[in-house]
Amino acid sequence: MAAKNNIQIAAQQAVAVSAPARASIEARLLRRFLTTLGDPPIEFLLPSGERVTPAAGSPVCQVHIKDRSTLLGMLGDPQVRFGDGYAAGRIEIHGDLVKLLEVIYRSSARTDVEGSIAHRVAGWLHRPRRNTFAGSRDNIHQHYDIGNEFYSLWLGETMAYTCAYYPSAEATLEQAQLAKMDHVCRKLRLRAGDTVVEAGCGWGSLALHMATHYGARVRAFNISREQLEFARARAKLMGLEDRVEFIEDDYRNISGRYDVFASVGMLEHVGRENYSELGRVVRRSLTSIGRGLIHSIGRNRPAPLHPWIERRIFPGAYAPSLGEMMQIFEPWELSVLDVENIRLHYALTLRHWLERFEAAREAISTMFDEHFVRMWRLYLAGSIAAFETGTLQLFQVVFTTQENNDIPLSRQHLYPL
Amino acid sequence: MAAKNNIQIAAQQAVAVSAPARASIEARLLRRFLTTLGDPPIEFLLPSGERVTPAAGSPVCQVHIKDRSTLLGMLGDPQVRFGDGYAAGRIEIHGDLVKLLEVIYRSSARTDVEGSIAHRVAGWLHRPRRNTFAGSRDNIHQHYDIGNEFYSLWLGETMAYTCAYYPSAEATLEQAQLAKMDHVCRKLRLRAGDTVVEAGCGWGSLALHMATHYGARVRAFNISREQLEFARARAKLMGLEDRVEFIEDDYRNISGRYDVFASVGMLEHVGRENYSELGRVVRRSLTSIGRGLIHSIGRNRPAPLHPWIERRIFPGAYAPSLGEMMQIFEPWELSVLDVENIRLHYALTLRHWLERFEAAREAISTMFDEHFVRMWRLYLAGSIAAFETGTLQLFQVVFTTQENNDIPLSRQHLYPL
Repeated sequence: MAAKNNIQIAAQQAVAVSAPARASIEARLLRRFLTTLGDPPIEFLLPSGERVTPAAGSPVCQVHIKDRSTLLGMLGDPQVRFGDGYAAGRIEIHGDLVKLLEVIYRSSARTDVEGSIAHRVAGWLHRPRRNTFAGSRDNIHQHYDIGNEFYSLWLGETMAYTCAYYPSAEATLEQAQLAKMDHVCRKLRLRAGDTVVEAGCGWGSLALHMATHYGARVRAFNISREQLEFARARAKLMGLEDRVEFIEDDYRNISGRYDVFASVGMLEHVGRENYSELGRVVRRSLTSIGRGLIHSIGRNRPAPLHPWIERRIFPGAYAPSLGEMMQIFEPWELSVLDVENIRLHYALTLRHWLERFEAAREAISTMFDEHFVRMWRLYLAGSIAAFETGTLQLFQVVFTTQENNDIPLSRQHLYPL
Repeated sequence: MAAKNNIQIAAQQAVAVSAPARASIEARLLRRFLTTLGDPPIEFLLPSGERVTPAAGSPVCQVHIKDRSTLLGMLGDPQVRFGDGYAAGRIEIHGDLVKLLEVIYRSSARTDVEGSIAHRVAGWLHRPRRNTFAGSRDNIHQHYDIGNEFYSLWLGETMAYTCAYYPSAEATLEQAQLAKMDHVCRKLRLRAGDTVVEAGCGWGSLALHMATHYGARVRAFNISREQLEFARARAKLMGLEDRVEFIEDDYRNISGRYDVFASVGMLEHVGRENYSELGRVVRRSLTSIGRGLIHSIGRNRPAPLHPWIERRIFPGAYAPSLGEMMQIFEPWELSVLDVENIRLHYALTLRHWLERFEAAREAISTMFDEHFVRMWRLYLAGSIAAFETGTLQLFQVVFTTQENNDIPLSRQHLYPL
């Protein structure tokens, strides 16, 4: 209802109503651009006060572009300049931000032809930053070291910053994050005494859960110093320092042999060029009957990450297709046992995060400026839209060595009563 | 115990016991060859009566090579000539055939280095026959049109000639084949009134099961005339002619739109060069919220099928890696929801088939000559070994359109009480 009212108010404020005959150059350029996007049902309010209404259907919301240079910039490089314009407050949305982004994803998916020139140019223009050892450190620092306090405002008690697993759509974020950890541990058939190496451990929630609830011994690697400090403090508080070791180092430096390899939400930062190297680390880290799980954002086909997200939010990040993920396993004869795509769970998770983010806005405002708040809101809303529309996927891949025959006949054990 | 006695008897019969000092040229060539194979624990009895004992460990069985040209041929092209020699009775196995093949697979897996010259040469030498429309028809005819009576002797009542799904390792073949059909139908969330297109339907068991137990309407495609005759007779007998249509045509000619696409055990005959075309057929056959399943033999990494199998048993066949299978889905933005690797179920299935095959040997002997019987025994035993050692995999891939959000949050429904 709020969205509708906003649109009505905006409509009243508009000083001029566009008619095809006397549309400005900007309006005509915008209209042409919207056609290439598949004509999403969106209304635009231009700096001149002119309105551009959708070619068909009633608008889900109104996008108000406040100045001419933002409008022209957006027409030139829409993917990056829309986000930048919104973050800077030069673009205002009257209506539901998530719905807006959903209709854009849906309509552009219809026009996005495989192998199209636009597709290839986008891939070439927007290559993610390299993930060398130093590059990874910079890339990770830029996102994860901006303050544990900030993250704790909206991630909830578990401080898990990856897709949760909802026992039902009504579950709380905390219930779903705990259920995710149990789902992962069951997929790994984790048993007391198992040794685990974790690549990219965030604030340590999974490692600590494995030790507490499954009796595992975990060595957890991470290159985010702030996350590690938090994780170590938690381990101390929980009296788990002898069972969980948090190590500040790159996954490429993992040494030793383990029963289990786990990586939840790190692959997005590895970079395609390093998949085979990651597979080598996995293979040499596992015992002859070792097993592993990699949980990652993915795509239905190879495509660059949204360039605004890659530039402003996750430098160096890439979401692989399942075929690309196989470049981790195939060179080393690792045997894929189970793949589950839980993308709708990420839409639910992100909705909870965005809700809490908005609720904590006042506190966040004392830490960061308005530009930051708007940028993060757009990132969270856009991610909901991407998972909701199938633009992004979430793959959990379970694997083992080729020679391991200790494999249950059924996956029934993942679904206890 | 029988195996052990055979070895002992054979040992007594051997006229000479090899000693490194006076080993013949053949024995030395064989020994060198066995080193490249990773020294499997096998004893050889040569045409001269000379014995070649394993470099380490006690032999699991004895391979008796009866003439010199078979021995030399085997050293030149072991993969094809061993099978041909066995089928012709010029190679005799004293001991457990499956165990022999398992130790060969296991020891050669250890020496088979990724990207090795031998690996690449094998891939180049043994390219499978093409699957053009006419090529597919010939290839399929050669294996599947050799007599329904023959297959009915060992496939069991269901006449399902694909990997079964064992509720427990003790289940019968019939129970496991029915459980497989239900597992597939549950993965597809098949409901009364759903329309299904099946690509490669064998003797029709899955199509008829879908109609009988799930109320689906099925159009099933196949290019094996003998299988279709059998399937049509079954449909008539079951009074399902109005719900299940068996069509003699290539999957590439599938027309119409369906709620469900299913293909169990056909992909092996499609050929890599046609994966994208298969994906196109899948995409155009599905409604906007359609779903599908492809069940296929696979590999942990791309590799040609065993050349003896491709030449003598399954002309034109190829078992893809999971990464290669993605070439079906990715060009068409089909979204992979679930992958399950059930290779150990295929080892169980094949054990049942081989057991029944041996029990029906007398009846089979009235249909085919001894060469055929030995060839098929080797094929079934070799397949058990391949699935048991992880040389082959069995992937069930569930997918849907990118835009379909009617996806259950959990796979719990696959595991009813």
